[in-house]
Amino acid sequence: MESFAIKGDLIWTEKPDSFMTMHDGYITVSDGRITSVSSERPSADIVDRSGCLVIPGLSDLHIHAPQYVFMGMHMDEELLEWLEKHTFPAEAAFSDTGFAREAYGSFAEALLKTPTTRLSAFGTIHEDSTLILMDILGKAGFHGYVGKVNMDRNSPDSLVEDTDESIASTRSFIERSSAYSSIRPIITPRFIPSCSDRLLKELGRIASGLSIPIQSHLDENRSEIEWVASLCPWARDYASAYDSFSLLTDRTIMAHCVWMTDDEIDLLKARGTYIAHSPTSNLNLSSGIAPVRHFLDKGLSVGLATDVAGGSSLSLLTVMQDAVKASKMRWRLQDDSAKPLGLSEVFYLASKGGGSFFGSVGSFEPGFDADIVILDEAEGFRTSCHSIEERLEMAVYRSSELPVKEKYIRGIRCTCS
Amino acid sequence: MESFAIKGDLIWTEKPDSFMTMHDGYITVSDGRITSVSSERPSADIVDRSGCLVIPGLSDLHIHAPQYVFMGMHMDEELLEWLEKHTFPAEAAFSDTGFAREAYGSFAEALLKTPTTRLSAFGTIHEDSTLILMDILGKAGFHGYVGKVNMDRNSPDSLVEDTDESIASTRSFIERSSAYSSIRPIITPRFIPSCSDRLLKELGRIASGLSIPIQSHLDENRSEIEWVASLCPWARDYASAYDSFSLLTDRTIMAHCVWMTDDEIDLLKARGTYIAHSPTSNLNLSSGIAPVRHFLDKGLSVGLATDVAGGSSLSLLTVMQDAVKASKMRWRLQDDSAKPLGLSEVFYLASKGGGSFFGSVGSFEPGFDADIVILDEAEGFRTSCHSIEERLEMAVYRSSELPVKEKYIRGIRCTCS
Repeated sequence: MESFAIKGDLIWTEKPDSFMTMHDGYITVSDGRITSVSSERPSADIVDRSGCLVIPGLSDLHIHAPQYVFMGMHMDEELLEWLEKHTFPAEAAFSDTGFAREAYGSFAEALLKTPTTRLSAFGTIHEDSTLILMDILGKAGFHGYVGKVNMDRNSPDSLVEDTDESIASTRSFIERSSAYSSIRPIITPRFIPSCSDRLLKELGRIASGLSIPIQSHLDENRSEIEWVASLCPWARDYASAYDSFSLLTDRTIMAHCVWMTDDEIDLLKARGTYIAHSPTSNLNLSSGIAPVRHFLDKGLSVGLATDVAGGSSLSLLTVMQDAVKASKMRWRLQDDSAKPLGLSEVFYLASKGGGSFFGSVGSFEPGFDADIVILDEAEGFRTSCHSIEERLEMAVYRSSELPVKEKYIRGIRCTCS
Repeated sequence: MESFAIKGDLIWTEKPDSFMTMHDGYITVSDGRITSVSSERPSADIVDRSGCLVIPGLSDLHIHAPQYVFMGMHMDEELLEWLEKHTFPAEAAFSDTGFAREAYGSFAEALLKTPTTRLSAFGTIHEDSTLILMDILGKAGFHGYVGKVNMDRNSPDSLVEDTDESIASTRSFIERSSAYSSIRPIITPRFIPSCSDRLLKELGRIASGLSIPIQSHLDENRSEIEWVASLCPWARDYASAYDSFSLLTDRTIMAHCVWMTDDEIDLLKARGTYIAHSPTSNLNLSSGIAPVRHFLDKGLSVGLATDVAGGSSLSLLTVMQDAVKASKMRWRLQDDSAKPLGLSEVFYLASKGGGSFFGSVGSFEPGFDADIVILDEAEGFRTSCHSIEERLEMAVYRSSELPVKEKYIRGIRCTCS
């Protein structure tokens, strides 16, 4: 792969509390990595995007690829009713690999138009269809993880697996996924209500034995938490139930974490587990607002997530906006000691914060993977009177008016049709 | 004006609790009014929009036209700081009528691309520039109200008026606005902190004497409310301060109403005053969440508003989404007796609820003004498996993907460039 440099108006965050900006800056890329960021023209070939807003690729830490088929619908319900009535029937359709290929094709095409470059995605219980998702995402240029979902209890007939078959299919899925390099497998128990203790224990063993990361859901909804307490009366709490199966590691992503006890926060901190903050979904499903300020103060690893289709947008720019809005309401209505998240903080979470799960990803620093997104600013965003930071703020708050112009993942240009 | 009929997939609300839909329905329009809504082909000329989602024009009850120039910026502050640092300097620029013509031209052009057909807008204190706004909105095809803002205290030098001059300019503005027919004047004291008692009293007299409607702000932010209490120690509360100047009428719109006492709610109910619920702005400025369920139960008149640029979107579809999300958070975090707003309820508020301020507006019922919006659904929204209601829900939750195809106001087709 050759060296090249992208020229544009750069904005990124190395730390949560402030933006770095460079007008007419050059990002030099060599072998898929950033080698320098400078206002001096390098000797490499120049991809001239002068005047365009250039941001690091964003990382979506939690997204249900099959649910894209009903994104934006069924938003007048809470989690458990919503799963039963809408989500499970939609996911059952992915037993048909022809349907899966079509649906996942649309999903990948839509995702290309967003600033996301990395993702950790749920498929369904269906091994073949989930391998198709890996194939399609990889071919589209994305990097990240895809998991075959495990469910062996409390699920409709069309989505419940025999425990042994679920374990065998997971092992088979991992073996067969060696055909793909940019999209890797991730162990994906749906959540405790859907998985027997024996299944969870075995999945913990597989993850540990094969060094495979893990993703699941934690403390999203109060009824869910009560249900988990009744299913795991032996556990101190929801998080420690996962922990007892060796599922909380520094290669684990837990989505939501809205209603965490102090013990649970301490446990996730001790394990180095990532939190996928999903405010759009948490607002839509009336789940509540996660104490992100508290997570950050405690030094937990946090990233942002669309959680499609509890989330109604594929764009992490929209999620950033909801993360700020939700933190303001939490501050106003629930806990006035936790000051609202600022723009640079939510941008950091969506870029370098969540990106760290995937390696050196989400910043314009030498040595980082060259995940670079060029935004196509609407008329009026880019005038002589606007700073680069103001333009980024408009990109977040008016994300609807802002398509992606092009993006590079590890230095490779994705083809946005 | 001739008769014609628009054919499409119709959705509207006659009452808040349910949608009316008609697949391949015909709306017959004569002299700017709807004469029939039927699934039978009428004898009139047909504007064939088969397969398109067709909704009533939406009414924006509160929007600051001059603030469009910084929409989507400066969202990390609360109301009073935000006014001082960003809003007042931006509005001061409208003393230049050349600047105003350009800025208001961009505003109207952008507004044409949204489903809004009616609006009640704030201009600035500047009489000439505000008349330009009326001219531009009228020529673009909109109906509604525009107010010259009054401010004679606690404002920066560039925006503070002499009391007598403010009164004289208001009278002059009203006289000169007789040149326009579709956009009418509205008395617009900014809010109590910006207006002396004498000014408010005189504005109440003008409104009453000339039968002109009124718009202002009420109970948006807690610091603002404390300030009003110190400015009007003689008043029971913020609402009754307005009332003492005869400013609460059934032709008055009060924006926000986030922190209302029971007395204030009863007073607005007794006066028939409209509430402009502005959830996007209330989230952005950390103001809080208005008790809309309570307003509806009490039978108050409520509509939706973008409140640009506290609000960061010109589209009432986005505001509907935020109204639902905000009501869910209020229910979850503040008052579990007030159940969240459903989709048909927020749609009703944005169409027939707010529309009633402008007459028979916002529904597909015979006798209603023919304000009709045809949406340009994104790929995937319109398939054989989606109901009209589901398509409308996607339009709300994925408003970013949904431009307006065309709109008719009182039967006249607007030209969306």
